[in-house]
Amino acid sequence: MKKTTLFENIKRKRSFLCVGLDTDIKKIPPHLREDADPVFAFNRAIIDATAGYCVAYKPNMAFYEYGGTEGWRSFEKTVDYLKTNYPDQFIIADAKRGDIGNTSIMYAHTFFKKMGVHSLTIAPYMGEDSVKPFLSYEGKWAILLALTSNQGSNDFQMTEDHQGERLFEKVLRISKDWGSDENMMYVVGATQGKMFEAIRRIVPDHFLLVPGIGAQGGSLEEVCRYGMNEQCGLLVNSSRAIIYVDSTEQFARKASEASAVIQKEMEYFLSKKRII
Amino acid sequence: MKKTTLFENIKRKRSFLCVGLDTDIKKIPPHLREDADPVFAFNRAIIDATAGYCVAYKPNMAFYEYGGTEGWRSFEKTVDYLKTNYPDQFIIADAKRGDIGNTSIMYAHTFFKKMGVHSLTIAPYMGEDSVKPFLSYEGKWAILLALTSNQGSNDFQMTEDHQGERLFEKVLRISKDWGSDENMMYVVGATQGKMFEAIRRIVPDHFLLVPGIGAQGGSLEEVCRYGMNEQCGLLVNSSRAIIYVDSTEQFARKASEASAVIQKEMEYFLSKKRII
Repeated sequence: MKKTTLFENIKRKRSFLCVGLDTDIKKIPPHLREDADPVFAFNRAIIDATAGYCVAYKPNMAFYEYGGTEGWRSFEKTVDYLKTNYPDQFIIADAKRGDIGNTSIMYAHTFFKKMGVHSLTIAPYMGEDSVKPFLSYEGKWAILLALTSNQGSNDFQMTEDHQGERLFEKVLRISKDWGSDENMMYVVGATQGKMFEAIRRIVPDHFLLVPGIGAQGGSLEEVCRYGMNEQCGLLVNSSRAIIYVDSTEQFARKASEASAVIQKEMEYFLSKKRII
Repeated sequence: MKKTTLFENIKRKRSFLCVGLDTDIKKIPPHLREDADPVFAFNRAIIDATAGYCVAYKPNMAFYEYGGTEGWRSFEKTVDYLKTNYPDQFIIADAKRGDIGNTSIMYAHTFFKKMGVHSLTIAPYMGEDSVKPFLSYEGKWAILLALTSNQGSNDFQMTEDHQGERLFEKVLRISKDWGSDENMMYVVGATQGKMFEAIRRIVPDHFLLVPGIGAQGGSLEEVCRYGMNEQCGLLVNSSRAIIYVDSTEQFARKASEASAVIQKEMEYFLSKKRII
């Protein structure tokens, strides 16, 4: 998917919500567990209920690998379902991959060619040759970790070099020349608040994938104030606060309502920024 | 597997070789491609041919994910085959995982409980809470990336802070207190030569997993000179130089010979260090 298409989708749907499909077999409503593929049945219902309010879906690979071959199959079916029924949705495989060149080439082929997702999250620790293989596919995106939403982000990402540049800033500065804002995005946690200012100084035009709203405590208002640019530039993810808002047979309707509430907030911030 | 068991295996087999199962369907000898599961058929033959000369196997997850559900099944069968027939082999899933706590918990459960591998490679970028979930399983190991073998290792891993400490040194220094040398190892590329001296000053007792011998050009002699400790402390991986040394029906015999040559070299270095 091209950047202009993503931006058009955001304007049309008045939303920059990404729904995280962290589908945990243990948290699926009981009545679905009888299904031949409960994870896929759950995802399909969540997708049908929320697609009107979001522009992206982010399956978290850990939750599919947990199911072994069956889990992998549920992931494939989910991606196929999205591509067939909701081709305007941007699909992010949240996999945190990255390895030496010949191995990253395999990962890129698997996720972009075989699975057909639009993007993959990638850890930057191994540097340029571990990321480059993800940048040679038309319409596909590498989403590099910059500043994550968890407590451990303080351990290494905030380390300052002798000139006062923090590691996450160096990751942004160096890596942005490996590709462009047409094939790279960055993960920046919503819990990082004012850090978005520093980040926008380095990557003013790139889209940022922002986890950490909801269960992790980040503020949408702060993310928008410091992180939104003229083309929105944000995909804000919510997982648990949408997909597990209810655990009865009403789960899909409740997920729909929860995503509609977030969409309304997003519409307000898009309007305030005069994007819509 | 306990550290003492691993050390006993090294002494008994006079080897600290890890065979990398980077099994690429496109490089499998033609006569195996007719098999119902060519990847597993290849792995089984390689394992039978090399198990006498090594103490560990390292399937590279990228090569199994490449096959989708079938590839994942080949991985499971390979692990089961090792556990059933060669229970003294240390199994490393080379997956470079690492995510926020609730997600790392899923990965740890998948690889340690369900698959039953002994260890998993992990990227350190997200810090303590992304690694800790891998440290609570008896006899299981987190193998953290420290200084990798690829060109891109210069991009961020060598970054010095204001006190001159490089990022890979900080990763070692900080992370070694998250666990111990009984449940953590580090990846250090064989191509890093004298860097092993700096590394051993920080983690004198930990095992190091060393890729980069062979196809990537690292020197076993240099790795042993600077990296070996009193309990060996090294697992040196070779993938392509063993498993793809021949592409005919003789591939397994040739792989056996190639691993025997490396084992002999390792025996020499173990003897020189008076470990055997």
